[in-house]
Amino acid sequence: MDASLTLLILDLVGVYFFAVSGSLLAARQRFDLVGSLLLACVAGLGGGVVRDLVLGAGPPVVFTQPLYLVPPVVAVVTVYFISASVRRYNRLLVVFDAAGLALFCVSGTLIGLNAHQHPVAAALLGVTTAVGGGLLRDVIANVTPTLFDQREFYAIPAFVGAALTVAAESAGLLQGVAAIVIAALVFGLRVAGRRLRWSIPLASRNVVD
Amino acid sequence: MDASLTLLILDLVGVYFFAVSGSLLAARQRFDLVGSLLLACVAGLGGGVVRDLVLGAGPPVVFTQPLYLVPPVVAVVTVYFISASVRRYNRLLVVFDAAGLALFCVSGTLIGLNAHQHPVAAALLGVTTAVGGGLLRDVIANVTPTLFDQREFYAIPAFVGAALTVAAESAGLLQGVAAIVIAALVFGLRVAGRRLRWSIPLASRNVVD
Amino acid sequence: MDASLTLLILDLVGVYFFAVSGSLLAARQRFDLVGSLLLACVAGLGGGVVRDLVLGAGPPVVFTQPLYLVPPVVAVVTVYFISASVRRYNRLLVVFDAAGLALFCVSGTLIGLNAHQHPVAAALLGVTTAVGGGLLRDVIANVTPTLFDQREFYAIPAFVGAALTVAAESAGLLQGVAAIVIAALVFGLRVAGRRLRWSIPLASRNVVD
Repeated sequence: MDASLTLLILDLVGVYFFAVSGSLLAARQRFDLVGSLLLACVAGLGGGVVRDLVLGAGPPVVFTQPLYLVPPVVAVVTVYFISASVRRYNRLLVVFDAAGLALFCVSGTLIGLNAHQHPVAAALLGVTTAVGGGLLRDVIANVTPTLFDQREFYAIPAFVGAALTVAAESAGLLQGVAAIVIAALVFGLRVAGRRLRWSIPLASRNVVD
Repeated sequence: MDASLTLLILDLVGVYFFAVSGSLLAARQRFDLVGSLLLACVAGLGGGVVRDLVLGAGPPVVFTQPLYLVPPVVAVVTVYFISASVRRYNRLLVVFDAAGLALFCVSGTLIGLNAHQHPVAAALLGVTTAVGGGLLRDVIANVTPTLFDQREFYAIPAFVGAALTVAAESAGLLQGVAAIVIAALVFGLRVAGRRLRWSIPLASRNVVD
Repeated sequence: MDASLTLLILDLVGVYFFAVSGSLLAARQRFDLVGSLLLACVAGLGGGVVRDLVLGAGPPVVFTQPLYLVPPVVAVVTVYFISASVRRYNRLLVVFDAAGLALFCVSGTLIGLNAHQHPVAAALLGVTTAVGGGLLRDVIANVTPTLFDQREFYAIPAFVGAALTVAAESAGLLQGVAAIVIAALVFGLRVAGRRLRWSIPLASRNVVD
């Protein structure tokens, strides 16, 4: 399987996972099916649109390859048939969001490197892609972004994944295998960090009320 | 009247309608005149800026044709002189928002087709243009987006209008007449759907609390 | 010192001031250090990313010059070591936000002029750059944008600064000196307007409840 096909599959699967997170949020907020589709599109495709606008190499891929519209539609159908409690939605949302984050920080970085960006820019692009869709999803649905939630361990795994992708690429490791190993690691970090309540110091050493 | 002039007029009138919706929201939220102008610009010009960034053919049209700044200024003046109750603001807001939606899903799709996008991409661009300005307006003013409001019938009319525009164009119908008929239909669908309380199934078949 | 170096320094200092405003907001909202870094990046770099996307001349400068990542990191460290009360955070936030606004409306306009935009477009770009980062910061942190806060005098100084920059440039005044004088004036206007409670008429002459 060649590198660009691997990358396309990684990217589409990432779109699906984030799109499910968008539809789950729509279900939890009791939006209707159209709201579900729109939030699936924003969550699944938002990060990639920002990435492609930044790269500036023509229209974002979703506008040139309608194939990218399939995962959001499948996500809406998937979520429609899940019967669950609000509590279970939240748990599912974290898992799908983590999977999307894992795949996008890798695929976003690789797309940046393939577009001949220098390594720091490519890693930054990977983090932007990974964090962007979920951030847009939360801002648009008017909930506090997961990104700023103290109980979550969100951006660090994406930074780690983007940095490892740059390192693996410059070490000449095979893209396909390395990509999946790194994505699995990012997913594990995100989920473990949440479960084990890893926390990061507050933004200020000392806030006096 | 040639096609590009028709398109320019449609687009400017759409900018005006959405700009009025922005200023009405500013009035309802008791923002000042500067807030009114900014919300008029975001609502009226936001969808088109996103559309032009996606097309990637140079700076968005508002930055190259200062003519586009006229409708928001006129909208601010219009709203300043409307004396109304909060209740009546909400009713006016729906009408102007519907008119903007109707014109933008048509003009956005036509601009996409004129830029040689394939039909699905052009329709998607039309929906993005139509829905984008109102979404940015609501997110920035920190109110729940109309797009996700159960009582509204919002995105479906935009999808229908974009699809009909693609169909009319490929059938070789005259742009000017077809555009106005489709826009009127989208407006009617949006307003009728709201009045008759058409509703769409929820995002999930079964949410248990 | 040549003009482009002056411009780079003005822009980097503006990034630092806005980045501090982002980190201060993160501290006030009790986000962690990663949230502080992200909000510093959004506030400091967001306006410039939008500006560069609009100009459409390749990837935004932050992705091509990693130097731009330094001010947000320094801002996070700065804020971490400030011990202050919530009340004092708000006061500091206004000062840093005003300084960023002052520098960005000048540097954004100059960058627009250097990219051969016509004067109105360049001024609009300056205002967008100046107002954009703070707006993204507030929307993402889910607080009411400072831009719409009645007690603030926010957008007018940015408009004045952008207009004066266009005027100074077309009068052939030295960029470096003129830029600093204009920025100081914008800063003064913003801070004085707030202190002296200058207010602007409401968006509507008459809202009846």
